[in-house]
Amino acid sequence: MMHMKRLLSIFVPSFGFSSSSASSRLKIGDILKQARTFSNADVVEYSKLSCDSNPLHFDSDCARNAGFGDRLVHGMLVASLFPRIIASHYPGAVYVSQSLQFRLPVHIGEDITGVVQATNIREIKKKYIVKFSTKCFKNDDQLVLDGEATAILPTLEPGESMG
Amino acid sequence: MMHMKRLLSIFVPSFGFSSSSASSRLKIGDILKQARTFSNADVVEYSKLSCDSNPLHFDSDCARNAGFGDRLVHGMLVASLFPRIIASHYPGAVYVSQSLQFRLPVHIGEDITGVVQATNIREIKKKYIVKFSTKCFKNDDQLVLDGEATAILPTLEPGESMG
Repeated sequence: MMHMKRLLSIFVPSFGFSSSSASSRLKIGDILKQARTFSNADVVEYSKLSCDSNPLHFDSDCARNAGFGDRLVHGMLVASLFPRIIASHYPGAVYVSQSLQFRLPVHIGEDITGVVQATNIREIKKKYIVKFSTKCFKNDDQLVLDGEATAILPTLEPGESMG
Repeated sequence: MMHMKRLLSIFVPSFGFSSSSASSRLKIGDILKQARTFSNADVVEYSKLSCDSNPLHFDSDCARNAGFGDRLVHGMLVASLFPRIIASHYPGAVYVSQSLQFRLPVHIGEDITGVVQATNIREIKKKYIVKFSTKCFKNDDQLVLDGEATAILPTLEPGESMG
């Protein structure tokens, strides 16, 4: 099941899967989740795109000498789960802020789950400023990435503004 | 000159160009800069890689209806400039935290300059915990992205730990 979810999450960009609240108006406490495993190809592709040549992502010896199990996934690539989760449920969401605390290394091939929870909702000029807690876990329970995001949503109804 | 710098920055991943302090030990106040223009191809590639299907990145009408000039570059792709700048000068740098305040939209094709400045340096167990202010500007003076990063550097000598 986990594997199927992951595949869906990777290959069906918009509404792969979501929490049970996805069919109703967003409210405080609602949780949105998506899982992903970052592959070697993902890391190579992201390195090219971001021009990030940090050897921790390419060189196993360098990564091990620095105290890691093996090569690392770029932190910002892991963090890309958060806007993806928010935008896949609320297309047209505009990012206002994101804080990121990298707590544990993410190695290539590890199963990562992004968990986004609405913690505050304010309506201003017919739009919604929503604060989310944003966390990534590996092996279901190890917190690897922690933080908060704020986004402006055009609507609290999931998927409604999709073109 | 700006154009040449940008090309260098895009096609020479590791040490494209840097501040005048790049050949000396990092100290508080030192500034590292790199410029980049995100293309349509960059945005399409990043969307695929991150599975982010927000129409603001694909659909000009959607972006204009939301009040923007045209399609937006993903905020996290713009933010990738910061770890790239830090790691290109200090290979082996490990990211601890990053805060991001998205102040102005970044449209496809706009000239963006990432500016990273060391604001605090602490030595612990022969490594260096360095706090940086991290900013991106467009048109040289408009602040589009603001925040702070903390990274652990293996050394304060630029490029020394490159494999």
